[in-house]
Amino acid sequence: MELDPRRMQDWQIAEAAEEQMKPIGRLAAELGLRDDELVPYGAKLAKVHYAKALERLDGAPRAKYIDVTAITPTPLGEGKTTTTLGLIQGLGVLGKRVCGAIRQPSGGPTFNIKGSAAGGGLAQCIPLTPLSIRFTGDIDCVTNAHNLAMVAMTARMQHERNYDDARLAQSHLRRLDIDPDRVQIGWAMDFCAQSLRSIRIGRGGKMDGFEMDSGFQMSVASEVMAILSVATDLRDLRERIAHMVVAYDRQGNEVTTGDLDVDGAMTAWLVDAINPNLVQTLEGQPVFVHAGPFANIAIGQSSIIADRLGTRLGEYHITESGFGADIGFEKFWNLKCRMSGLSPDAVVLVATIRALKMHGGGPAVKAGVPLADEYVTENLGLVEAGCENLLAHIDIVRKSGVRPIVCINSFHTDAQAEIDLVRRIAEAAGARAVCSEHWLKGGQGALELAEAVIETCNEPSHFQFLYDLTMPLRQRIELIAKEVYGAKGVTYTDEALAKAKRLEAESYGTRLGTCMAKTQLSLSHDPELKGRPTDWVLPINDILVYKGAGFVVPVAGSIRLMPGTGSNPAFRRIDVDVETGKVRGLF
Amino acid sequence: MELDPRRMQDWQIAEAAEEQMKPIGRLAAELGLRDDELVPYGAKLAKVHYAKALERLDGAPRAKYIDVTAITPTPLGEGKTTTTLGLIQGLGVLGKRVCGAIRQPSGGPTFNIKGSAAGGGLAQCIPLTPLSIRFTGDIDCVTNAHNLAMVAMTARMQHERNYDDARLAQSHLRRLDIDPDRVQIGWAMDFCAQSLRSIRIGRGGKMDGFEMDSGFQMSVASEVMAILSVATDLRDLRERIAHMVVAYDRQGNEVTTGDLDVDGAMTAWLVDAINPNLVQTLEGQPVFVHAGPFANIAIGQSSIIADRLGTRLGEYHITESGFGADIGFEKFWNLKCRMSGLSPDAVVLVATIRALKMHGGGPAVKAGVPLADEYVTENLGLVEAGCENLLAHIDIVRKSGVRPIVCINSFHTDAQAEIDLVRRIAEAAGARAVCSEHWLKGGQGALELAEAVIETCNEPSHFQFLYDLTMPLRQRIELIAKEVYGAKGVTYTDEALAKAKRLEAESYGTRLGTCMAKTQLSLSHDPELKGRPTDWVLPINDILVYKGAGFVVPVAGSIRLMPGTGSNPAFRRIDVDVETGKVRGLF
Repeated sequence: MELDPRRMQDWQIAEAAEEQMKPIGRLAAELGLRDDELVPYGAKLAKVHYAKALERLDGAPRAKYIDVTAITPTPLGEGKTTTTLGLIQGLGVLGKRVCGAIRQPSGGPTFNIKGSAAGGGLAQCIPLTPLSIRFTGDIDCVTNAHNLAMVAMTARMQHERNYDDARLAQSHLRRLDIDPDRVQIGWAMDFCAQSLRSIRIGRGGKMDGFEMDSGFQMSVASEVMAILSVATDLRDLRERIAHMVVAYDRQGNEVTTGDLDVDGAMTAWLVDAINPNLVQTLEGQPVFVHAGPFANIAIGQSSIIADRLGTRLGEYHITESGFGADIGFEKFWNLKCRMSGLSPDAVVLVATIRALKMHGGGPAVKAGVPLADEYVTENLGLVEAGCENLLAHIDIVRKSGVRPIVCINSFHTDAQAEIDLVRRIAEAAGARAVCSEHWLKGGQGALELAEAVIETCNEPSHFQFLYDLTMPLRQRIELIAKEVYGAKGVTYTDEALAKAKRLEAESYGTRLGTCMAKTQLSLSHDPELKGRPTDWVLPINDILVYKGAGFVVPVAGSIRLMPGTGSNPAFRRIDVDVETGKVRGLF
Repeated sequence: MELDPRRMQDWQIAEAAEEQMKPIGRLAAELGLRDDELVPYGAKLAKVHYAKALERLDGAPRAKYIDVTAITPTPLGEGKTTTTLGLIQGLGVLGKRVCGAIRQPSGGPTFNIKGSAAGGGLAQCIPLTPLSIRFTGDIDCVTNAHNLAMVAMTARMQHERNYDDARLAQSHLRRLDIDPDRVQIGWAMDFCAQSLRSIRIGRGGKMDGFEMDSGFQMSVASEVMAILSVATDLRDLRERIAHMVVAYDRQGNEVTTGDLDVDGAMTAWLVDAINPNLVQTLEGQPVFVHAGPFANIAIGQSSIIADRLGTRLGEYHITESGFGADIGFEKFWNLKCRMSGLSPDAVVLVATIRALKMHGGGPAVKAGVPLADEYVTENLGLVEAGCENLLAHIDIVRKSGVRPIVCINSFHTDAQAEIDLVRRIAEAAGARAVCSEHWLKGGQGALELAEAVIETCNEPSHFQFLYDLTMPLRQRIELIAKEVYGAKGVTYTDEALAKAKRLEAESYGTRLGTCMAKTQLSLSHDPELKGRPTDWVLPINDILVYKGAGFVVPVAGSIRLMPGTGSNPAFRRIDVDVETGKVRGLF
């Protein structure tokens, strides 16, 4: 059966390819894993005992390490995961031992408008259905661990209100005296449930909870998910979980999951989730899918543990950072690499002609709405103007000391003249530039990209952090704002300023990393500003403390932690063939 | 290592036993399953492709089928699951090919006060940790399928409020016009989260959902869980899901998941969950753990599919019904057996001296509080008085045409004279009676029980339903109230009466089963009335329609679908050994 992405939907390609996929045991053995390091989940997926494998592989040569990032995306995404998988497949065609790591797709987008996030066309991860639904249950475990903390906190608030100290002492409880106006976390659910964004809980009598304002966020925005992505081992994860700040007491002191005696039980939900999940590309290369934190509020990277494993197993290990280089790559560069001790040998910067046209002044691109004419016919003016955005991202990557490889993720509507123009502009700015047709042709379409990556990896890398951890918080924020985003300055709300000063005084600012929260739809904080915005100031509205995950989060503009489900969501087209049990309609 | 339940906690026994447990492949092969019918989840658990296995086993001899039920329990439970597992182990000691089926424990009790529900002492299911946490993810899949329906409904209500018909038509939506005052379902979470029992959702602007009252229930109280337990195959499950009534429109018509176009996607969450999970007893007999519906509001039985499989694989298949015989067995008898086509060859009625003393007038038994003296020293007066409750349950089972086997689930504090008294009273009432020490001694302690079961299975059974489906709804309710619960009559609220009349007119009452919702803590609707209450009337406050699951639910008294977390819950004592990854503190 010939697989033609122009005539087939992603799930149809995946379903056909799954007929011939490698048994998981063979895939793992080819990657160099031993039987006792594998926990199979049926014949198509497995978890890998990271601790066993890493202990055995201690001292093994380190693979070349490649990060894939992108320009400022349209709401449709620029095919970053597709390019990651295409590159893995291309290196596979060239006979390289290659391994990859991507984030687990969230149920929110999968059932809403954007669809799953397992690549597309002939550059996909399979099996598609478990990747999109259920998988090995990691996101559910994160959801449950998170909600257990909320159960513990709200029940404790109720009991402390209802009982005096003597009665609390019978249950060996000391009064935590949580300030209901300073609760720091809400509940988690992995769907786009806008109706749960802002809720009032605990209504009813004195045994019906503690009445207060609350809300749900996407599970992938949970600090627990961020912890899963940055933990280096189970001990580290256990400690991070215990340090999650859930609220402040009436005296202003932190209240943690440890104070609620719920940190051990939360960790119990994560003892399997910490093991990376192994799947494969359409062409049979191994890919870890592990952790899926949001990139706008959390770190937005696949797990450190998966990269630790992947860089010990192959010659090349490809990882992916969420959203554009201003967000995803900046956090990869200054947070993830600092925490993991790994540094990249090459960085791929994905661009599409469609997104460049949007940045050049094309009409708004909206999920679920057909593209305007400008996007499907040649328009060199829009492309050239839009390259300003590409140049900004090239500059960002170059500041890390790595020469970026611009990869034009080709669509069949792109004109050759448009592609040539982008290559010329990117090369003039000091980047390598390639065009890649992995969506249409799989690994064979990504050979130019794969060769550029190999070349770059053979050159010396001068990777260095943007800032040192001794730099005070506000100075760091200003540096990121100016050097990465291109702002001319930073302003703070009174509340954010007070928090910044307190964090600096408490020396948090130098012990924890800085994880900026900003829209992915612009280099600035304003999603409407496309291209390369100039003459603007970054407003910091709040500063959150993710003490467990290990960073403070300065919030620029407004960040939504619970997206909404649209009026024509993907779930309407998903169904099951009751004869075969196969799921249809995923994309 | 000698395993002594008097000196070890359940998780310590389980952990020791897991060192020597059978690999899942061998367990399955001994049960008669083929490799390609198994989906291993690591080396200790597997799902079974029910469809493949049942197709191959079509025509195989049917095993003897045994249901385990109990007297009216204390809040601590009477060891029904422990006895089920003890009986399986006892039959194993006698060399019988035996298989069992129990419900999956809910995260609510596991992390709250009651603990896990995988047996206890030397009669347990292993591996304990996955049984208590995560498992194969079935409950999470039920939660997600359920909440996806809520996302679909609340988003639809928002869009219909915000957009006119022309705009809705662009998304191919017709106006459903859901009446916000007649929404039938809430959200699901598998914890005891009393703060989410009664909430106000959709607060904020017009894009923040639809503002209305709502609430969460335990996932195990969800109709989706009930459907998982009664579905006979995937096609049947798909159809049942589509018929779930989520609300009524302003004209009074039903609005279903099918109307929301979410039934297919909900089913996609359940394509793996429909396959039963295979684990083992401490002594290596196979046990299916599948579905976990509440017994007070839903059907409270392990799945029909697990029983279909188990009765084709062994000589004896043991299944379990939730709560006392008035609830669990009555639903097994008149709902599950009618839907499955199976009928029991024997019924075991579990009693404890502790519960009989409570029914005889002993002080209240409360979870988390030490037992009063009456419960740990000989007190024949309390036991004899409490046997009134046992006699009521014997009568219930006898009405099904099966002679019950009363099993005294022995505790080390029981006096021999107390046990002898119960045996005499049970035998005088026409039951078999045995005392069983499986908690202390495992299968060796349950030989008398196993032999009584074998004897009973060799006698002819005269199993018959209490009522015919042609019997009108109110007549059926009255029959159950009088014949099973011992009420002298039934009253209805105006609302319930109107619903009953409408259901009878729509002939729902004769197409759907009747699944009573009543407290498990009394034969009556009042949890305070112990023993065998007389001279009381059953009040029906509401009648719910679970059209997908296939029954109407007359609600007697008040039923709580979201329990509360206590002040000294189990999660405080659960932790992880970060060196080994083992979970500690489960019970």
